[in-house]
Parts: sequence; C-alpha cells; structure tokens
Amino acid sequence: MDTLLAHINAPKDLKKLSKDQLAQVVRELREFIIDIVATKEGHLGASLGVVELTVALHYVFNTPTDKLIWDVGHQAYGHKILTGRKEIFGTNRQLNGISGFPKMGESEYDAFGTGHSSTSISAILGMALASKLKEEHQRQHIAVIGDASIASGMAFEGLNHAGVTDTNILIVLNDNAIGIDPSVGALKKYLTNVKKGTAKDENIFECLNFNYSGPMDGHDLNALIQELERLKSLPGPKLLHVITIKGRGLQKAEENQVTYHAPGKFDKNTGELLKKSDRPEPLKYQDVFGHTLVALANANERIVGITPAMPTGSSLKYMMEAIPDRAFDVGIAEQHAVTMAAGMAAAGLIPFCNVYSTFLQRAYDQIIHDVALQNIPVIFCLDRAGLVGQDGPTHHGAFDIAYLRCIPNMVLCAPLNEVELRNIMYTAQLGLENPIAIRYPRGRGVLLDWERPFEEMEIGTALELKKGTNLAILSTGTIGNSITQVLKEITNDQSVGHYHFPFIKPLDTKRIHQILKNYGHIITVEDGSAIGGFGSGILEVANDLGCPKEIKVFGIPDVFIPHGTQEELYQLAQIDIQSIRTYIERLL
Amino acid sequence: MDTLLAHINAPKDLKKLSKDQLAQVVRELREFIIDIVATKEGHLGASLGVVELTVALHYVFNTPTDKLIWDVGHQAYGHKILTGRKEIFGTNRQLNGISGFPKMGESEYDAFGTGHSSTSISAILGMALASKLKEEHQRQHIAVIGDASIASGMAFEGLNHAGVTDTNILIVLNDNAIGIDPSVGALKKYLTNVKKGTAKDENIFECLNFNYSGPMDGHDLNALIQELERLKSLPGPKLLHVITIKGRGLQKAEENQVTYHAPGKFDKNTGELLKKSDRPEPLKYQDVFGHTLVALANANERIVGITPAMPTGSSLKYMMEAIPDRAFDVGIAEQHAVTMAAGMAAAGLIPFCNVYSTFLQRAYDQIIHDVALQNIPVIFCLDRAGLVGQDGPTHHGAFDIAYLRCIPNMVLCAPLNEVELRNIMYTAQLGLENPIAIRYPRGRGVLLDWERPFEEMEIGTALELKKGTNLAILSTGTIGNSITQVLKEITNDQSVGHYHFPFIKPLDTKRIHQILKNYGHIITVEDGSAIGGFGSGILEVANDLGCPKEIKVFGIPDVFIPHGTQEELYQLAQIDIQSIRTYIERLL
Repeated sequence: MDTLLAHINAPKDLKKLSKDQLAQVVRELREFIIDIVATKEGHLGASLGVVELTVALHYVFNTPTDKLIWDVGHQAYGHKILTGRKEIFGTNRQLNGISGFPKMGESEYDAFGTGHSSTSISAILGMALASKLKEEHQRQHIAVIGDASIASGMAFEGLNHAGVTDTNILIVLNDNAIGIDPSVGALKKYLTNVKKGTAKDENIFECLNFNYSGPMDGHDLNALIQELERLKSLPGPKLLHVITIKGRGLQKAEENQVTYHAPGKFDKNTGELLKKSDRPEPLKYQDVFGHTLVALANANERIVGITPAMPTGSSLKYMMEAIPDRAFDVGIAEQHAVTMAAGMAAAGLIPFCNVYSTFLQRAYDQIIHDVALQNIPVIFCLDRAGLVGQDGPTHHGAFDIAYLRCIPNMVLCAPLNEVELRNIMYTAQLGLENPIAIRYPRGRGVLLDWERPFEEMEIGTALELKKGTNLAILSTGTIGNSITQVLKEITNDQSVGHYHFPFIKPLDTKRIHQILKNYGHIITVEDGSAIGGFGSGILEVANDLGCPKEIKVFGIPDVFIPHGTQEELYQLAQIDIQSIRTYIERLL
Repeated sequence: MDTLLAHINAPKDLKKLSKDQLAQVVRELREFIIDIVATKEGHLGASLGVVELTVALHYVFNTPTDKLIWDVGHQAYGHKILTGRKEIFGTNRQLNGISGFPKMGESEYDAFGTGHSSTSISAILGMALASKLKEEHQRQHIAVIGDASIASGMAFEGLNHAGVTDTNILIVLNDNAIGIDPSVGALKKYLTNVKKGTAKDENIFECLNFNYSGPMDGHDLNALIQELERLKSLPGPKLLHVITIKGRGLQKAEENQVTYHAPGKFDKNTGELLKKSDRPEPLKYQDVFGHTLVALANANERIVGITPAMPTGSSLKYMMEAIPDRAFDVGIAEQHAVTMAAGMAAAGLIPFCNVYSTFLQRAYDQIIHDVALQNIPVIFCLDRAGLVGQDGPTHHGAFDIAYLRCIPNMVLCAPLNEVELRNIMYTAQLGLENPIAIRYPRGRGVLLDWERPFEEMEIGTALELKKGTNLAILSTGTIGNSITQVLKEITNDQSVGHYHFPFIKPLDTKRIHQILKNYGHIITVEDGSAIGGFGSGILEVANDLGCPKEIKVFGIPDVFIPHGTQEELYQLAQIDIQSIRTYIERLL
C-alpha cells in the first residue's frame, strides 16, 4: 500500500503536506510503530503517546538546524522514523542495528544521546548558550521531557539555571502521569491539580521564570502546531505543558501502561501479548530479590524497601503490594533515595535500597558522603549489573565494581546464583555493621528450586567450587556459572580449580594466598570493567602479599559496549563461555 | 567574667532562661564564636548568621530526641557550642579535635553528618519516616538549609517526596542570598521577589504541598521562638522561610560576605584580616588555573568556563570578571554543570568545567553517560584533589583517580606543577578529541615563575625526571615534588630513578615496560586511593605486559582520613616525604 509515510525521508517532506495529510501521517506512523515493535520488541507506550507531538515538532521547527532533545529517549521511535531511519527501524535494538535511544553518532537529527532521564534541559541549555555566544539567534532549542523525569533533581537544576537566561529554549513537558511506573511526588500532585483546574493562581514554572503555556491536549495535532508556531516567535525560556496518554492508539497499551512500556512481542491487531514458552524457567534475579525481600520484611519489621522509580523493573512492587507502608517509590531520585536510606538506617531501620547498577552512578556522592563515611548499614541491591543487552551502553552496569571497591567501609558482594542472592540478603539484615552493595545481573537465574531455607554467609569468605592443581579460575558473581559450564565441557580436567568470590570487598586474602602458592596459572573472570575491577583487586592483593604473578583477567574491556543480546555482548566483550574455554584449552 | 554561656552545657540549660537572658546568650554566643575563630580559623560568616536561629531551635525543640540536621554544616558552630562542645571548641578543625562540620560520632546532638550541601531534607525525611513506622509520633524532625543549598537538585528531590508524606518535618530555609559566593538561579530570583513582596500569590513551596510560613526576620529571637512553637504543633511537612544576614554581628563580615565565609585569622575587635607573610610565595594552584583560563579564553573565543557555585574557591572568578558572558556560575548543581558542558561542547564550544574533586562525585553519572559515552571533549579541572586538610573527610578528593580511570574515552591527567597544569590546559583546548580530567591539589604550587610560555604536551607520555639503576619511583601529580625532595635528601643516590606520569590514563605502557625491564625495585606514589588508583593501574599494565613484579604502592589507604593540616594528613596516610624516604632508605 502506498502510504504518505513511505514518502517521508526527512522532516522537510512533512512540510509539504496539508493539515489533513499530516493527520494521516500521524495514523500511519502509529501503525508503523505498532507493526514493527509487535515483532521486534522495544519501548512501545512512550513512543505511541507522542506521535502527534513528534509530527508537530518536526513540522514547525527546522531540525536538525534547530536542536531537539528527547529526554530519556524511550519516546523517540516516531522521531527516528521521520528522520531517515524508517527503512532500518526493524534493526532497532539489535546488534549493529539502530539504537533504541537517540544517539548522536547515528543521525544529525539526534542532537544529544539520551537513555538516563532528566538530562535534556541541561544539554539543550548548553546548546542554547552556545548559539547565543555564536550569535546564531535564529536557532531554536527544544527539549521534550516527561513528568516523571522533570521531577528528578537534575532537571530542576537545569530549570533553575535556564530560568535566569535569555536563551531561546522551549521545554515541552509531556505529562502522561507515568514514567515506567506511575509518577509520584509533590510535583506530580501539583501537575494533577493544574490539569483539573484546582490549582491556585500559582504556577511553579512561572515561579522559575519560565513563560508557561498549557495544559493542552497533546493529541490535538492542529492545536499543537498552532501553539508551537506561537511559542517559536517568543523570546526567552518557555515551557509548554502537554497532556498525553501513554500507549495512545493501542487500547491494551492505554489500559495497561506499565506492561506496555516495553511489552515484548504482541499481536499487532489485538495488542495481546504473545505467550512465552510454557517450559518451566528459573525466575529473574529481580524477582528472587523481590520475593525474598517480602519474606525477610515479614519476619523483620525494621526492614524497609526503597526504589527510585523502578518498582516494576526491579520488583520492589511485591513489597509495595504486600507491605505498602514500608516500601517507598521515591520517583527518579537516586540521590534522595540513598540519603533517605541513610537517614532511615541512622534511625534504626534496615533499608534495602534497590537501584539499577547504571543508575546508582547518579548517587555516587551520597554513597560515599552520606553512607560509607558514616558507616551506616544501608543494604544496596544493584539490579542490572554487567551487560544488560538491548538497552545498550547507557544501561550497562559495567562500572559498579570499580567505583564501589575504592570506598572505605563498603562491603561488595556478587552472588553466584539465586540461593546466594537470598542468603546474602538474609545475612545483611541480621545486623551487618557496614553498608553493603549486592550486585546481580539482568535476566533469569540458573535454579528452579531457588526458595531454599536461608543460611548465613560469612562476609569476606571465598569458596572452592572445584579443586585443581595447575590452573585456578577465580570468578565473582553469576558469571561463575559460565565457568562451571566450561569445566563441564572440558570434561572436568582435574588440573583446573574453580574459586567463587561472593565478596569483592573484603577480598578473601587468605584464600588468594593459598591459590597463589598452589597454582601455576591464574585466571579471573567478572562481568564488570577490567580496569579497577575484581581482577585488579586480585592483582593488588597478590602484590600486597608479595606474590606477584601473571594473571589473565577476563572483564569488560576499556570501551563502551554497544547494544545487542546479552549473549552477543558477552561475546563482544570476550567474557563469554567460548572465549574463556578457548583460552583455557590453549593454556592446558 | 561570668557569662550565661558559661553555664550552658546542654540545650536543657537554655530552657531555664528568660527571654531577656536568651537575648544575652545570643550576644555571648556570637562573641564566643568570633573570639575563637579569630585565632583558630574556620567558617565564620554562616555561623554568625544563625545564632538567633540556633538558640531558638534548641530552646523550642527537645534535642537530641528531636532530630536536627544542619545542611552543609558551615553554620553549626553555635550548635556545637550549645551542645556540650564549648570547652573543646578551640580544637575545631584540628587533628584529633572536633570536626568543622556536624559529625554523628562526635555528639548525639549531631543527628546526621554533613559537609556536602543539600543532603539534609533527604536525611531528615528518612528519620521522620522511621519515627512514623516506629510510632514515635511526638518526635520532631528539623532540617536547616540555606537558599543556595535548597536550589540543588538533590534538595528538590527531597522536597518532592516529603511534600506527599504526612511526616512531622520542618524545613527551615535560611535565606541569606549567599552560599560561599552569592546565590544564583531562578529560585533565588523568586525568593527575592517573595522577600520584596513582588511575587504573585504563587508560592513554590505550597505548590510542593508544604505548609509555608514566612518570610520572617531570622534575627528576631522572640518572633522566631513564637513561630517555631506554633509550627511545632502543626502536623505534616512545613517550611519556615527566615531571612538572615551572613556574618551578622561583625561589620566587616557583613560587608564582605565572601571573604568572611572562612577568613583565616583576624582581629576580633575590628574584624581586620591579619596580614600574612610578605615573603613571596608560589600561587595557589586554583589561581594558576584561574589566570591561565583567562589567558587561554582571551586567545580562543570558543572557550567557556563553568563552576557549580565555586567562583571564589576555584578561582573561576577571574574569568567571570574578565569575560563575564563566557563564564558561568550555575549554583550548587554539579550534575547540571557537567551535562550543560556536554551540550556546549556538542555545539562546538570548548568548556572548562571546574569542580572540586569531591563534588564531582555528584556528577559521576553525567561524566559517564553524557560526556564519555558520547566522547564529547569537555575539559574537567578538578580542584582539591588529594587530601584537603582541615575540611576533612567530607572534602578530601581521594577517589577521583579510581572512579575516573575505569571510564572509557577519558583522559586523566595529574600535572607535576604549575607549568604542567598550564601546559595541559593549553593542550586540551588545542583540539583534544576526548574528554579530559585534570586534577590538582588544594594549596600553593612550587614555582615562583609559573607564567612561562605554553608548550603542547604529548598525551599519554611519561617523563624520566631522573635516571637510576636499581629502584624506580613512579609518581603522578604534584606529589612528585615530594619525591624530588626525597631524592635531594638522600643526596641523589645514583641507583634511584624517578618517573613522572602526568597521564594516569592513558598510561605510558612503553615507558612502564622499559622500567620493568631495567629496574629491580619499583615504587608508585600518588595522593589518591590506593585501591583502584594509579599504582593499581601500573600493576594492571605490568600484568598485561606479562611482567608481573612486586611494586610498593604509596597511596591513600582504605580508610576515611580525618581532618587536620595537609601535612599531618599526608603523614597519617603515610604518603609524606618521611614515610617514603624511610622506605627507600631501608630498601637501599
């Protein structure tokens, strides 16, 4: 079928169309997104919600000369399709395909890469200030940011600065009352009042010196175009508040916005999710965490749970359902989450602060300054450690070992499997006097019978999983299961020993000493940055013990690993089973 | 003279006094602070500004049962003096003396340690939620936060969460329109309008669901007491906006608020600063940075300068005076500063983003996600790297090498002296394609003739400062000057070689290989965390080269180093000249 969309290869093609034709493009674009994401998977709901806005922005503004930044970037599929990536959109999130997020290297229309939230205002302000200095007075600067993202501290910092500049910037607040999970917080409540008309004359954005416009229906294409045209001609910082429905145009996605944020494969006509295999599979680590926390919290009333806006993604939702008054979703506010946890622990509670590894980077100072320096026993559960797969480099949890290992007082644990994850969670809440970070990867575990009785772990003790004579493999975390697999494949060569280090800090120096004495060859394996990581820690200990030895370190190399399946990325990083096996076989 | 203050050993002693007597305590407390700080040095202005507030809070509330947190903590001297630390206040900021900041381990009245700004709302909310869960309904929770600190993103995250709770918290906004330097931003402008009465009905804190009270005179003790009593009886989150004058009670401090933030020694009667030695001294590194940036920016109009609220502390003030439209103080907003810099660089400018090492921890995610991942050439200048002295563990820049070294694409440089600092700044703006972080310490340099012609440096190249035969000392940064000193002291033993590594990343592997081959003994020296630091990097390279060797690593050990003079702390950390010299002499 010949569609209008088929002829749109760049935003300039939009500008030739009539208003009626634009409305047709909106329909076709929505259908196109649904068609592809139904089979190729991806972030559905956010992109469906901003189809009208996407068409309107590219119609009114002169991209890529005008700069357009999509905060977080979940919602940029329509933008990608309209800016020359329609034909390759089917490669979205695949290895060597286009990124699921805006990416500067991919297109000149992607003015700034996104992935983590709340960066767009700062970035667009930087560009707008640059335009001012370069006397490019005609250039427009637009950031589209959701109501969940604008509530994050970083966005406030951007607004606070932008409000006192005379830069030509437009912030489009895409208010759908939901991030990945429903939005929370006082600002959300305020925006709700604004929408209902029950707010007073007060306007929080006018307080910050923005020219405020709205709220308006973000699905009314003509009204959007008219208002954007008007705002384009106004000088200074402007904020347009548009109301949209996440998942707009696919009934199931509108009704189940959390599920359809990234629904996996579905029937493009009915929206029904495609059933996955019936074969029993191990749980995801995040669910083992989530269920275990409920069990522990039921037995220990001092336990509280905290998530910065990831109740579904990190499965704190189970505790939020079971024990709502002790489980807190604080919104996209990692800094606040960590220091609030410190305050709670200082007051005698036992906080489990549950954050994706990559997002904990946002709270690095709080971990050092508010938690570790005061040696406050907060329990950090770091989901999505290691390589996460299709979300790519913005989301990999590659650095946590390196950035946490250098902090005094911290305990850093990477369990081998579900049972050990449960046991370290159990151990931590028994009265550990230090802060602890427990890292585990995205995806499923390795055991079907994960729910075994709790056992206390000994902090700082490594385990001999297999005794050997010549080659010792030292691993930390779930990647140790790959080593077990390799050892099976090479039919359990008696010369190879395998040691699992649940504790990256403190390291089991006694065990390391023993290994250094007893083995001729040593390999370390981890799913984190090789620089400054677990292997580096082993080198440090070997050196401190006066037993320097050549060690083969398998870890994530010193490059940003792209997107693809987890399996593909482990191969790329050469920390996959085959790479390790090949090395061992060559050695033996 | 028998004073009232002499009889106040705890807040309960205040409660016995009449209003008139309280007014006398205020006068005595101010005098006491001035007397001690005049000779012992410390943070003067902030504490003078909150004397009435301090007395009122301890009079009205039941500390330490009620929790009181002082944001940043610069202003807590009066609090310390009233809570049992009057007799030891003269040890303030000295080794083994009391801390210049609130510190949990020091007193039960210090509910939460502070030092970095904007943490107090999150911490007090954590405590208030804990009280609620523990059904301690009578307990009050108070955070005192300045107008500069509340504008930081983290504080907004705390307000945004607190506003939708029914916790018993009171935020006292101490509005003196200045942090260390004058406050900036849209919120500051808004608060000014509120004070002038020119704001509309709007109230930004009411938007966030706080019960707002004020603005009121923070130097009217009786009014303060009355209002605090009233607020104490109200449920839910409350914000009291008080107006104070930083430096109140010492005319010179009121008139020169930036200088008298921490004035050094002064005449307690006149406020006149005591003259320092007339002997010519090397400039501070921060001033070398500041003047050099002006010189470079005068020659290259693409250069811009950015500081998050430290124009004086990091000497960006010179550029702000000389080229105001290209130098930006963004307020306490490190996250925004870094991503805005990325936006500017993406638009073709050359941003020098100037942050204290310890505060860059606040923007760790932005460095990874917004700068390094996109390989955007932002130039970070990290002041106060290493051990800072009397500000103590909240302010040491101990971790930057470890946390930056693991990030792909980053260049990390630690110049030896003023000339090299200038040359790397010069080199970076010539067209370096990577982001770079340049770290340098607090305090003075080593050269009187620092202003030499610029020379381009070769990225990744180490220097042989002295050839040797047996022992090679590898150092990075200004601590290399200690090595030069040691070598002089041991009369230039011919067997000892000295190699300076301006680049911690990329490391000069060729030079390292040569050293490993030619020397029997190796020492590394750095003023950063030994775990994951420069020495660890050398171990990694030696291992990668297949030349493992025992290396003595001098670096900051795995503990938080307390406060004291820089000299004392280097001794504590055993990275001082004497420790290194003793080791070498034993070895030779």
